[in-house]
Amino acid sequence: MLMMGKVRLRDSELAKSVHDELSAYSREGEGIAVVETAGGVLSPGPSGALQADLYRPLRLPVILVADSRLGGIGSSVSAFESLKLRGYDIDAVLCFGGPEAANLEYLRDYFRSHSVQTYGLLEPPPRDNDEDVDQRNTREYYGSLNHAKTFERVVDTIRRQHRRRIGDIDSLPGRANKSIWHPFQQHQLQSEKNIMAIDSAYGDFFQIGNPETVQSEKRSGKGEQSALQTSVLRPAFDGSASWWTQGLGHGNPKLSLAAAYAAGRYGHVMFAGAVHEPALLLAETLLQNLQNPRLQKVFYTDNGSTGMEVAVKMALRASAQRYGWDSTSDEILMLGLKGSYHGDTIGVMDCSEPSTFNKKVEWYRGRGYWFDFPTVKMRRGRWFVEPPKGLEAEFGRSRSFKSLQEIFDVNKRDSSRYEAYIKATLERLSAEGKKFGALVMEPVVLGAGGMHLADPLFQQTLVDVVRRNYRFFGDELGSVTLRTATDQHAWKGLPVVFDEVFTGLFRLGRFSSASFLDVHPDISVHAKLLTGGLVPLCTTLASQSIFNAFLSKDKSDALLHGHSYTAHAVGCNVALESLLEMTQMEKSGDWAGFQRSWMGGDMFKRLRPDSENERQQTISIWSMWSNPFVSQLSQKETVDSVFALGSVLAVSIRDQAGSGYTSTAAVGLQKKLLQDAGPHGWVVHSRILGNVLYLMASQTSKMETLRAIEKMLLEAL
Amino acid sequence: MLMMGKVRLRDSELAKSVHDELSAYSREGEGIAVVETAGGVLSPGPSGALQADLYRPLRLPVILVADSRLGGIGSSVSAFESLKLRGYDIDAVLCFGGPEAANLEYLRDYFRSHSVQTYGLLEPPPRDNDEDVDQRNTREYYGSLNHAKTFERVVDTIRRQHRRRIGDIDSLPGRANKSIWHPFQQHQLQSEKNIMAIDSAYGDFFQIGNPETVQSEKRSGKGEQSALQTSVLRPAFDGSASWWTQGLGHGNPKLSLAAAYAAGRYGHVMFAGAVHEPALLLAETLLQNLQNPRLQKVFYTDNGSTGMEVAVKMALRASAQRYGWDSTSDEILMLGLKGSYHGDTIGVMDCSEPSTFNKKVEWYRGRGYWFDFPTVKMRRGRWFVEPPKGLEAEFGRSRSFKSLQEIFDVNKRDSSRYEAYIKATLERLSAEGKKFGALVMEPVVLGAGGMHLADPLFQQTLVDVVRRNYRFFGDELGSVTLRTATDQHAWKGLPVVFDEVFTGLFRLGRFSSASFLDVHPDISVHAKLLTGGLVPLCTTLASQSIFNAFLSKDKSDALLHGHSYTAHAVGCNVALESLLEMTQMEKSGDWAGFQRSWMGGDMFKRLRPDSENERQQTISIWSMWSNPFVSQLSQKETVDSVFALGSVLAVSIRDQAGSGYTSTAAVGLQKKLLQDAGPHGWVVHSRILGNVLYLMASQTSKMETLRAIEKMLLEAL
Repeated sequence: MLMMGKVRLRDSELAKSVHDELSAYSREGEGIAVVETAGGVLSPGPSGALQADLYRPLRLPVILVADSRLGGIGSSVSAFESLKLRGYDIDAVLCFGGPEAANLEYLRDYFRSHSVQTYGLLEPPPRDNDEDVDQRNTREYYGSLNHAKTFERVVDTIRRQHRRRIGDIDSLPGRANKSIWHPFQQHQLQSEKNIMAIDSAYGDFFQIGNPETVQSEKRSGKGEQSALQTSVLRPAFDGSASWWTQGLGHGNPKLSLAAAYAAGRYGHVMFAGAVHEPALLLAETLLQNLQNPRLQKVFYTDNGSTGMEVAVKMALRASAQRYGWDSTSDEILMLGLKGSYHGDTIGVMDCSEPSTFNKKVEWYRGRGYWFDFPTVKMRRGRWFVEPPKGLEAEFGRSRSFKSLQEIFDVNKRDSSRYEAYIKATLERLSAEGKKFGALVMEPVVLGAGGMHLADPLFQQTLVDVVRRNYRFFGDELGSVTLRTATDQHAWKGLPVVFDEVFTGLFRLGRFSSASFLDVHPDISVHAKLLTGGLVPLCTTLASQSIFNAFLSKDKSDALLHGHSYTAHAVGCNVALESLLEMTQMEKSGDWAGFQRSWMGGDMFKRLRPDSENERQQTISIWSMWSNPFVSQLSQKETVDSVFALGSVLAVSIRDQAGSGYTSTAAVGLQKKLLQDAGPHGWVVHSRILGNVLYLMASQTSKMETLRAIEKMLLEAL
Repeated sequence: MLMMGKVRLRDSELAKSVHDELSAYSREGEGIAVVETAGGVLSPGPSGALQADLYRPLRLPVILVADSRLGGIGSSVSAFESLKLRGYDIDAVLCFGGPEAANLEYLRDYFRSHSVQTYGLLEPPPRDNDEDVDQRNTREYYGSLNHAKTFERVVDTIRRQHRRRIGDIDSLPGRANKSIWHPFQQHQLQSEKNIMAIDSAYGDFFQIGNPETVQSEKRSGKGEQSALQTSVLRPAFDGSASWWTQGLGHGNPKLSLAAAYAAGRYGHVMFAGAVHEPALLLAETLLQNLQNPRLQKVFYTDNGSTGMEVAVKMALRASAQRYGWDSTSDEILMLGLKGSYHGDTIGVMDCSEPSTFNKKVEWYRGRGYWFDFPTVKMRRGRWFVEPPKGLEAEFGRSRSFKSLQEIFDVNKRDSSRYEAYIKATLERLSAEGKKFGALVMEPVVLGAGGMHLADPLFQQTLVDVVRRNYRFFGDELGSVTLRTATDQHAWKGLPVVFDEVFTGLFRLGRFSSASFLDVHPDISVHAKLLTGGLVPLCTTLASQSIFNAFLSKDKSDALLHGHSYTAHAVGCNVALESLLEMTQMEKSGDWAGFQRSWMGGDMFKRLRPDSENERQQTISIWSMWSNPFVSQLSQKETVDSVFALGSVLAVSIRDQAGSGYTSTAAVGLQKKLLQDAGPHGWVVHSRILGNVLYLMASQTSKMETLRAIEKMLLEAL
C-alpha cells in the first residue's frame, strides 16, 4: 500500500510515483505487488480526480473487493462497470463475509458470466480489538486452512492471468501475421517482427509490446519470472494521432460514456425517414459552427471515403442538371489539384490523378483535370511560397515571406498571376470540350497525397475564378437558371466541394479549414476528428441549391444512397461530445500557450470583410509545434523543408532518388524515433508518406510532451 | 412506491405492471408519480436481474439518490455511470445530509459537469423514533422552510425536464426536415409529418413520438398538463431490424459494456502495421466459424459497401494477374445475378446491372454481365421454383416442391438444365471477347435489389460451372499457373466473391449463408449483424491465393486500401461479443421453438459429403416466422407470393402496374401496420422495397412477439 500523506500531488505525478515504486519492486525480484486504493473505485484522489481515472495511465490489473453489506451486489457490479468503462481488466473479485455470505453466491454467478472468478473470504477480525493484544485472532485468521487455500487460489489466479496477458502480447504479432490483411501493407515485406502489438492506449500514448523483452524471455525460457523483472510494455507517443482521427486522447472516459449512453438508449436506429436526438443535434452543431451560410443540409455516412462519394454524387447531379448534360454519354470530370486524395473507394479514387495509390487498381479511371499548385514551405528558417516545377514562368519564382501569417493574409496578396494562369488553363480545357462537374479540394493541406501545404491564395483564387466564369463550364442555359434563382447562396460556375476530412475540426487549429481561404464551399465533408478517435462517422454538408437538384416527384431522382449504420447513434453522440469538448477548449483559450510561440506583430488582426457574407474574421496561424523548433528543424542538413500548422508537423527529408510515396528516405528517422527511448522512457511512433515524416499531436497533447518530442526529433536528425 | 411482495414476477411482467400502474395514475389527472426502487440501481430484482435492466423497457427519468456516507461519492458516480450505460436520463441528484455534507459539494460539481443538478436535503428523522409518537419531528422536517424550498426546486426541475423532453420529441421531425438530408429519401415527398421521431429503443421496439398526442397538445395549448394525461410515446416493433443490422436487441447492456470497454482500453488505434486483441480475436473467430478452408486472411473496412469495394479490388487483381490482362486498356467485367446490390459507393454500384438505384448516378457505368435466375416462392400454400420470365424453355416451367427443405437439398436435385444454360451463355460472352474478373453474388437472398430468394441450386451450379471452365475466362496461361500452384484451395476459373453482408451471421439462421449452397467462396464479405446493430464495421475475408496476388517486392503492388478507423477497437470488441452471443444461442438451442414449426420428416439429415473438403453438414431450413403462418399469408387475395427464411419474411403484394422499386403496392399495408396498434398496444414499423413488404426479426425476438405480429399482418391484409 502506498501512503500518499497529505501532499497534494498532480495526478500525473501520483501515477508516476506509483509506477516508479512498482518498477523498483520489480527490480528486486519475483513477487506480487498490490496497490491498495482508498475507498471505492471512483472515490476521489488527492486532486479530486476519480481514482479509477487517476490510475488509468498504469492500467494495472484489478482485484475488485466486493461489498458484502446490504446493497453490496449493486455497488459491486456498478464498480465493475465503471472499471470496464475505463478499459481495466479485472483479474478476480474478492468478497468478504465467508463462503455463506448472501452477496457471494449472486456475485459469483454474475462475474462468471463476465469470465471473472469470485472468491469468498472470511471477514478479518476487527483491527482495534483490545483483547487481541498478541494478534492471535489475526494469526488464526490467516492460518486457517480453508482460508489459506482460498488465498492461494487468488494468488494463483493473479499469476495465471499475468502469464496469459504476457502470452497474449507475445503472440499478437505472429497471429496477426497469419490472419490479418493489413491496410496499405506490402505483406511480402512484413514479418511478425515489424507488427506492433498494442496492449492499450491512454492519452497520447500507446502501450506497445516490447519485442526485446519478449525475445529475451523466450531465450531465457523463464517465462513468468523474468517477465516480472523486465518491462513487458513500452509507452510510445501516438505520432499519427491514430491515423489522424484522435483529438481528445485515447481512453477518454467522457467519450466512452457518451458511446455507452447512446448504445444503451438506442443501440442503432435505422435512419430512413427517422430521426433521433444525437443525429439532429450533431447536424445542427456542425451547421452552426462552420459559419458557412451556404450549408443547410447534413447527410451522414460512415467514413471520409463514403462521405466524398456522396459529395461527388451531389455535385455531379447539380452540374449535370444545370448544364443539361446527358450523363450516360457525357463524361463529366472533376477539377482539382495534383496530389489530392479523397479516399479508397473507386469512385473517389477517380477524383484524383493517377498515382501510386490508385494506378494499379484495375477499375481506376482518373476522371478529371488536376492543377499543379504552389506550395508553402519553411527552408533554412524562412517561409517560402514555391511554384510547382516547370511553372516558374507562369507563377513567378520562389518568394520568401516574413511569417507564415503573412502568407495566410490572402486578401492582402496579389492573385493576378494565379488568376491569369487558371483562366488560361480553363479556357484551353473548355476549348477541348471537357465537361467539369465540380471543383474538389482539400483546403490548405493535402494530406494522404504527401502532406503538401498549398498556397492558400492559389486555392482561393481557383474558387473565385471558377465561380465567376460559368462560361468555362456550361452554356447560357446554366447562366439563365442561375439568374432566375432566388437563392443568394446558389452555387456558381461549379459546385465547390471541400474535403475537410483531414484538415477540419481543429486539426489545423480551427473548426473549419475553409476559413483559412476565406471561402464558403457548397459542399463540405467532415470525418476523422469528428468522433475524436473512437468510431467511424462522416458528414457531408450541402447547400440548399445542391439539395434542390434532387427534388422531384420521382423517387428515383432522390439521392439513393445510405449505409445501414447511417447516422448511428453511438457515433453521433460521441461526435457531439467531441465537438463540445474541442469548442470549449478553444473558448477557454486552452491553446494559448502554443499560440504564444507563433504570435508576431501582425497576429490576430481583423481582415477586411468577406465580400460574400460580410462577416468579419480573426485570422490566426499557429501550431502546437513551436515556432523556434520548426525553424531549427529546417536548418538540419538532411531536412529539405518543413511546415507546421495546428497539430500537424511535416518534415521532408532530402532524397536524391525522388520524393514520391515509394521513397524510403524517411524510414531511418522513423525507426530511430521508435527505437531510442528519450529521457522520459518512451519512444515515438510516427508514420511516413514517402520522404515526408509527419507528426500529429492530439488537441489535448500536453506542451511538455510535445517539447520533449521536439528535442528527440532534433537529436535524431 | 410499488409493493411487489414475495411473488416472483417475470421481468417483463414486472415492467408491465409498473407501466400499467403509471398509466392508471396518468389517467387520474395531473401530478408526478415516483417509482421508488429498492436498494441501489443495480441491486437485483425478484428474478435476479439487475434493477436498472429490469426497468429499462420503461426508461423512466431518474432521480438518483446519492449516498452521503463515507465512500458515497464513488458509489454515487458509479451508479450514475451504470444508469448512463443503459441509456437512462438522470433528471436530478438528491443528496441527504444537509447542505454542509461532505459529499454534496463534490457531487454538485461533478454532476454539473454532466449537466445534472444536485440538491442537498437534510437527513430525515429516524423512522422508528419512539419519542416522536405524534410524528412532530417528521412534520417539522417537511415543514422547515428551506427544506420545503429545496423540494419545490426538485419538483420544478422534474417538471422542467419533462417539458423539455416532450418539447424535444415534438420538435425533432420539424428540425430534422430542416437540417437532415435523409438516405434514400425523395425530399419533395417528405414532410415533417412522415419523419418518425425515435426517442429510444429497447429489445425489438422503438419508442416513437406519437404524432397524434403532439398534435392534440398543440391544439389544446395546454402543454405540460395534457402531456401528462396522454401517452407521448408509442412502442413500434422494429420490423426492419434497424435496417438489417440488429440481432441482439436495442439497448443491450452487454454490447454497451463491450463498446465502453474497448473505448476505455484503446480509444482507437491506427491499424497500419499494428494489431490489437479485439481485431485479432474477431478475425480468428470469423475464420474459425465460417468453416471455409479457403479463407485465410481478414481485411477490415467500415461497411458493406467499402468491404465489397475491397473484395472487387482483390478479385480484379487476382484474375488480371493470372490471365495477364492490361487493366489500363482491358475493361474487366463482373459476372453476377440480375437484381444484385452490393452498396452505394460507385465502384460496387458498377457491379450491378442498371437499375433505379444506380442509373441516375452520373458516374455509374455498369461493368458486368448479370444472369437471370430462377426464384423460390410460396404461392397459395405451396413452394415453387420459378424460372425467370421468358426463360421457361431453358429452365423448365415453374415446379412445385413439397417443402422449402426439399428445394434446399441442392445436392439431390438435377442441375443439368442450369448447367447447359450457364455454359451456353458463358460460351457466347467469351466469343464476344468479354473479360470477367470475378463471380459476385449474394448467396440465397438478394436483399436490397428486391428481396429475391434465389434457387440455391442455380447459384451452386453457377459457381461450379465457373470453377470448372477456365476456358471461358482466360487463356492457357491461367490454366498453367493454376496447375503449378501448390495451394489446393487456389481459386479456379474466376475468384468467387460472396456478399454475405445481409445474408450472413445468422440472418438466415446460419453463421454462413454460403453453407446453404454448399459452396466455399474465395472472398467473403460480412457486416451488418457483425456488430449486432451498434456501430459500422465490415470484414472482407480472402483465400491465400487471392492474398498472394498482391505479394511482390514493390510496395505499390500491395492492396493500398485503408480507412482511418480500420479495425476500430470499439467495433471489433462489440462484434466479438455479438458473435459470441449468437453462437452460444445456436449451441444452446435457443431457436428450437422456432425450428419446430418447420421440422418435416426429412429435416436435420446428413447430406452427402462436400466434394471439396469432405466435411459433413447438417442442413436445416427454418424461419422465426412460423410455417403455418407463411402458408396462410400466401393464401391471401392481395398477396402474390411469400417466403421466410431465418429471421426474414418477404411478402410480395400484387401490383398490376409492375413490381419494381418504384411500385407503391405495399405502401398501404405498411401504413396500416404503423397506425393500427394491436391488442398489446404497439404498432409495427416496416420497410418496403417496391411491392415487397418485408419484416425482419432480431435473433433475440420473442416468439410471443412474432406470433402477435403474424396475427396483425394477417388481419391487416
